[in-house]
Amino acid sequence: MSRSQSSPLGLSGRVSRPDRPGAGRLATGQPTKLDRWLAGQLAQRFDASRVHFTLWDEPEAPANGGRPVTLRIGDRGALYQLITHPEMNFGDLYSSGRVAVDGDLRTVLDEAYRQARQNTRPARVLARLRARSPDLSDSRRNIHHHYDIGNEFYRLWLDREALQYTCAYYADASMTLEQAQLAKMHHVCRKLRLAPGEQVVEAGSGWGGFALFMARNYGVKVRSFNISREQIAWSREWAKARQLDGQVEFVEDDYRNLSGRYDAFVSVGMLEHVGHGNYRQLGALIKRTLRPDGRGLVHSIGRDQPEPLNPWIARRIFPGAYPPTLREMLEIFEPNGLSVLDVENLRLHYARTLEHWLERYEENVDAVRSMFDSDFVRAWRFYLSGSNRAFVHGSMQLFQVLFSHSGTNTIPRTRAHLYSSGG
Amino acid sequence: MSRSQSSPLGLSGRVSRPDRPGAGRLATGQPTKLDRWLAGQLAQRFDASRVHFTLWDEPEAPANGGRPVTLRIGDRGALYQLITHPEMNFGDLYSSGRVAVDGDLRTVLDEAYRQARQNTRPARVLARLRARSPDLSDSRRNIHHHYDIGNEFYRLWLDREALQYTCAYYADASMTLEQAQLAKMHHVCRKLRLAPGEQVVEAGSGWGGFALFMARNYGVKVRSFNISREQIAWSREWAKARQLDGQVEFVEDDYRNLSGRYDAFVSVGMLEHVGHGNYRQLGALIKRTLRPDGRGLVHSIGRDQPEPLNPWIARRIFPGAYPPTLREMLEIFEPNGLSVLDVENLRLHYARTLEHWLERYEENVDAVRSMFDSDFVRAWRFYLSGSNRAFVHGSMQLFQVLFSHSGTNTIPRTRAHLYSSGG
Repeated sequence: MSRSQSSPLGLSGRVSRPDRPGAGRLATGQPTKLDRWLAGQLAQRFDASRVHFTLWDEPEAPANGGRPVTLRIGDRGALYQLITHPEMNFGDLYSSGRVAVDGDLRTVLDEAYRQARQNTRPARVLARLRARSPDLSDSRRNIHHHYDIGNEFYRLWLDREALQYTCAYYADASMTLEQAQLAKMHHVCRKLRLAPGEQVVEAGSGWGGFALFMARNYGVKVRSFNISREQIAWSREWAKARQLDGQVEFVEDDYRNLSGRYDAFVSVGMLEHVGHGNYRQLGALIKRTLRPDGRGLVHSIGRDQPEPLNPWIARRIFPGAYPPTLREMLEIFEPNGLSVLDVENLRLHYARTLEHWLERYEENVDAVRSMFDSDFVRAWRFYLSGSNRAFVHGSMQLFQVLFSHSGTNTIPRTRAHLYSSGG
Repeated sequence: MSRSQSSPLGLSGRVSRPDRPGAGRLATGQPTKLDRWLAGQLAQRFDASRVHFTLWDEPEAPANGGRPVTLRIGDRGALYQLITHPEMNFGDLYSSGRVAVDGDLRTVLDEAYRQARQNTRPARVLARLRARSPDLSDSRRNIHHHYDIGNEFYRLWLDREALQYTCAYYADASMTLEQAQLAKMHHVCRKLRLAPGEQVVEAGSGWGGFALFMARNYGVKVRSFNISREQIAWSREWAKARQLDGQVEFVEDDYRNLSGRYDAFVSVGMLEHVGHGNYRQLGALIKRTLRPDGRGLVHSIGRDQPEPLNPWIARRIFPGAYPPTLREMLEIFEPNGLSVLDVENLRLHYARTLEHWLERYEENVDAVRSMFDSDFVRAWRFYLSGSNRAFVHGSMQLFQVLFSHSGTNTIPRTRAHLYSSGG
């Protein structure tokens, strides 16, 4: 399967035709005094012992072997783009190779976080204004953009057990990716106290790994909603292959069309795509579908403070995505008579998950190259590295929120059952 | 110690001079047709097999031995007050004996909750409008009202170990009140990961039991703030008696005047008195006082949806109190760069705690009678019973919120350490 000619991120070509006129690749002579002054302004914000800047007149491969990390700006246009809007432009410049990094990309990102900590208020104030909530047709387009770029691609670096494209749970710090994804699924099922014969509805099923896991390990019937056609097709095949197609139904539809009554509602990694403006409606739907003693869990990337998604990720990787604060998430529950029982922040688990993904990605980078162009290869390296750093630095959180109807008393008194080895 | 002549709740006398003219004790002849029709309207809302209504023409002690529970309305004014504003007036009428209950008061309250579930929206909409946040002088008056009515009174029915006037933690359902209060204090200290030699600041110290517990069991230094003069005096004596006065300092001052830098911030049962409008300021203060790797925990009564405190409790028991929703609580953390790590809802633990308090209260009711008048005795029975039912029915929640500065990575990866028997 080769897709080299049609980068699904729309990166090919577009990176050399940027949106703002005059900011593209400029005819590049020797760096001028102005160029060097501008590069100096950039470099000044970084710790020189960690990141070293070079311009296009220096040789491509510096001799220092990546210590300090060298960031090479390949042309004058790239320099101007980095100066004017680094959050938006760095991703494209890195993807297209016009900015190259010799050494660990994460070191550059760490320095950027150090800088950003000094002044990010205005961005936060704007966050709510910018975040428009996707409607049904937006959602289909956005989800297609990200998830339909090829199941084979994701299989190269996700866990082999259940293709979980969400935060794993490292109950023990030494766990492998596979072990931690299994532990995550058990953790969620135990929080929900799933019992054999119960009916579960899942909003956002990914490749179906979690639905099949619940059916096989907890004896429940699952109905799973997803609007990604490629994922649904994959899930149905997988269910048949594992002879679980009698227990698990994959529905190619939006969660907003969800119907029926269930003992448990679960959504792992879908809320990021729902849009803040739709939370109250999502909660009303959960309220309707949950039986009186039902339990629910929403697992989502979040924030400590409202902030827009990094603009490059929002444009190239996850259009329409918004990671809410916990306070914003509560708009699902509070207006709808649902009671929050337990919230767990798994931020450091996502940092570790992304480390594992990035390792596998690099191990399989030749296979990625055979599928996509080099811009795509670099873009995904940047995206996985950047996300890892976002969780390490606390710019992103991971919230698991467990809830029930208000006043339901068939809830566990303590959380000790989650940590007993008996299961 | 006898206070029979001066009820600290201001109940004596006032109950027969109600605020609205014409709604007091009316010259009571035989019930009229209108009286009986009104009583019928009231009774209709209750399950007749559980609660039976009688008027003042029937004998005081019904012969049925409390099955169904009998609610006796003692005069025409009481009937009118019950009809017009039961949430406000029932407490006073019950306290003054003008409405008497033969059987378990909680059965009457359960029926009232069943009714209320049908239509409570308007009350909720008004909740935010009504809740004015107390300023410093309000706070001193409000706290004096509740906590300075006599240490001896609270000693009659709180746990003997640490005089905890907050929700206990029943790690095991069979725990006694004393065991559960110890378990609560350990649970909070483990969440905070207190280490010997660390400095802890406590906002709202009660009688000092928790501060002394932390010092003795976790080897920390504690600075505790409280504006109740009687509680501070008690706490200081207690610290001396236990030879912990070198490790624990009790400061008679408002949390708003808190200064210094600490490894941990803890507040158990104070937020209810802070007032929603002051949360952001409280968070800013926490942010300032917490060292970079510091941890914090706020333990507070809460709600699933915004709602005013029961008006009778707000007037007679806890003036100025407001139990926030979790979403409202997050106004402490979100605007101030604090990261929520863990939220636990301990509602059923408070229901059990109140059962234990009520049992002890009844066991020691003669001692209460020797201190206060019979209106006071009934008022506290009503308050403890009503609070028990509020937690049972889910009208009230108990949230423990654990937090740190945003981006702090010296946080535990999982919560397993809370549940390991090693400690």
